[in-house]
Amino acid sequence: MEASPVLAEVWRGPVLESVHRGAVAICRPDGELVEAWGEPGRVILPRSSCKMIQALPLVESGAADRYGLTAEHLALACASHQGATIHTALARDWLATLGLGDGDLRCGAHAPYDTAARRALRNRGEHPCQVHNNCSGKHCGFLTVNAHLGGDAEYVDPDHPVQRAVRAATEEVCDETVTAFAIDGCSAPNFAVTLKGLATAMARFARPAEGFRGIRAQAATRLRDAMAAHPELVAGEGRACTALMRAMNNGTVVKTGAEAVFVGILPEQGLGIALKIDDGATRGSEAAIAALLVRHGALDAHSPAFRAYADHPIENRRHIVHGHLRAAETLFD
Amino acid sequence: MEASPVLAEVWRGPVLESVHRGAVAICRPDGELVEAWGEPGRVILPRSSCKMIQALPLVESGAADRYGLTAEHLALACASHQGATIHTALARDWLATLGLGDGDLRCGAHAPYDTAARRALRNRGEHPCQVHNNCSGKHCGFLTVNAHLGGDAEYVDPDHPVQRAVRAATEEVCDETVTAFAIDGCSAPNFAVTLKGLATAMARFARPAEGFRGIRAQAATRLRDAMAAHPELVAGEGRACTALMRAMNNGTVVKTGAEAVFVGILPEQGLGIALKIDDGATRGSEAAIAALLVRHGALDAHSPAFRAYADHPIENRRHIVHGHLRAAETLFD
Repeated sequence: MEASPVLAEVWRGPVLESVHRGAVAICRPDGELVEAWGEPGRVILPRSSCKMIQALPLVESGAADRYGLTAEHLALACASHQGATIHTALARDWLATLGLGDGDLRCGAHAPYDTAARRALRNRGEHPCQVHNNCSGKHCGFLTVNAHLGGDAEYVDPDHPVQRAVRAATEEVCDETVTAFAIDGCSAPNFAVTLKGLATAMARFARPAEGFRGIRAQAATRLRDAMAAHPELVAGEGRACTALMRAMNNGTVVKTGAEAVFVGILPEQGLGIALKIDDGATRGSEAAIAALLVRHGALDAHSPAFRAYADHPIENRRHIVHGHLRAAETLFD
Repeated sequence: MEASPVLAEVWRGPVLESVHRGAVAICRPDGELVEAWGEPGRVILPRSSCKMIQALPLVESGAADRYGLTAEHLALACASHQGATIHTALARDWLATLGLGDGDLRCGAHAPYDTAARRALRNRGEHPCQVHNNCSGKHCGFLTVNAHLGGDAEYVDPDHPVQRAVRAATEEVCDETVTAFAIDGCSAPNFAVTLKGLATAMARFARPAEGFRGIRAQAATRLRDAMAAHPELVAGEGRACTALMRAMNNGTVVKTGAEAVFVGILPEQGLGIALKIDDGATRGSEAAIAALLVRHGALDAHSPAFRAYADHPIENRRHIVHGHLRAAETLFD
């Protein structure tokens, strides 16, 4: 893999201790590449950053309306959530609406990331359920599509109608043919795309009327607006997606994915951003997306959220500031 | 910073998802560079990988003998430990021997990494003490030198006699002048050195009779052998340093440092290894050191420890293997 440019720096005292290299593509809805760092044609696994694409069949098929899904449900379908009560209660209600339960999910269980929820579970002597999985909202979405289509229970099979619909939507919105996929942490297939393709898709979510037609334009608008309206459902307290969307409050949507992917949907600017840090470090992807949001006028450079992710001191065990994590100058030049 | 070669790869399905670049120097006791990847002249902060250097004044000054320190104490002085009872009980006894207590440490407190110790502390409603800090053994060593020298209480001040002794030892064993330092997570100064200098120092620990004279040769041998004899004290259960040293059981010593530094002391081969992953990811440094130990015949390529760190499957939430982390081929070629 060719070396990408440095997008984030970790300083300790006078020493540049660590760096995070990565690639970025910023596109318009017609696919025009506006800016790039590194190789915009690089094929990546978008991981959870593409959940709004994976949710398109949910809305477009009519399944969301048939089962009375609200903006909250749609935000949760696009979420990598903390497993706090606001997330798991909604997921449980959703499953009940479908006449299904935790055992119908195929995402697997893991302890909730939310500290209070994790402790409460432990204090009750209970094991985590699949609804605690950070991807349970996406899987509720898959199950809703499946209920609508009448497919078999193994909805994460790459050849299942639900995943074939996701694959088709991915190819259409990214304007490219998927040539590879991998199984994600939650067992769903994750379709590989180029950064440029993913950024184009995000630009189309930013300007659905320019990038899409008819039902797709309406579905993209609903999903994007649901995420922007409910940042607390898309991730949770203390998480970058939630903090950045709250700080912007201008319809801009950001979404992270494992191994340091981040996307941005910028309605005012009509731009889509897709970035991947080569080494998979979240601290690097958070710094880079915050810097790019400032660069394009979506986020205030003086906001605490910017400083928290793109320009923050590193304290040691006695709260002495000994270092600094910051986005690379190249993202501001 | 110039891009280093890829030393570890993270695959998911057919996609090379993330990579870890880094630099390596492998030297002999006379400073001869035997092998290198990337820039061996790169200046790094060795972080905790240099604890055996920081402990040289403890032995050389006579402080260790004056206070009756055993091999266990010396291993703990070179440790980044888990804060398990075997570590904290020894640190507490050590402090008592000096007529000191937890409040005399300057490393700061943090919750023990050891799960059982952390839970026990929480169940008793107690807060972590400074002995739980993974660096508390090193700080007990500093306090012992200080008791011997009669310095003031602020032994982590870079101009304190204890730290001046550490700096002098660092320059001598690495054969270079320290031009920068930073404050470490535990508040002690951490002196910047080149990878080549650090690898030379490790080679001298591997062959003290070749690399050092008199008291220093004896001190280096005692510290190295103490680490090799007590791998459980140098880190703890589930940690790479402990697992790799146990798997080798041939006098080879390895020690990690924060932000993905790793060093190796190979007595049989008469070699010292120093490596730093550019992005600071531990999964990368563990893969690289395990591969280099195999390359030089210190570790069996069929050992579970090698596979655990340099060639292991990645499971998802339903225990489906969907990926693979492995050291790059270049480390074996």
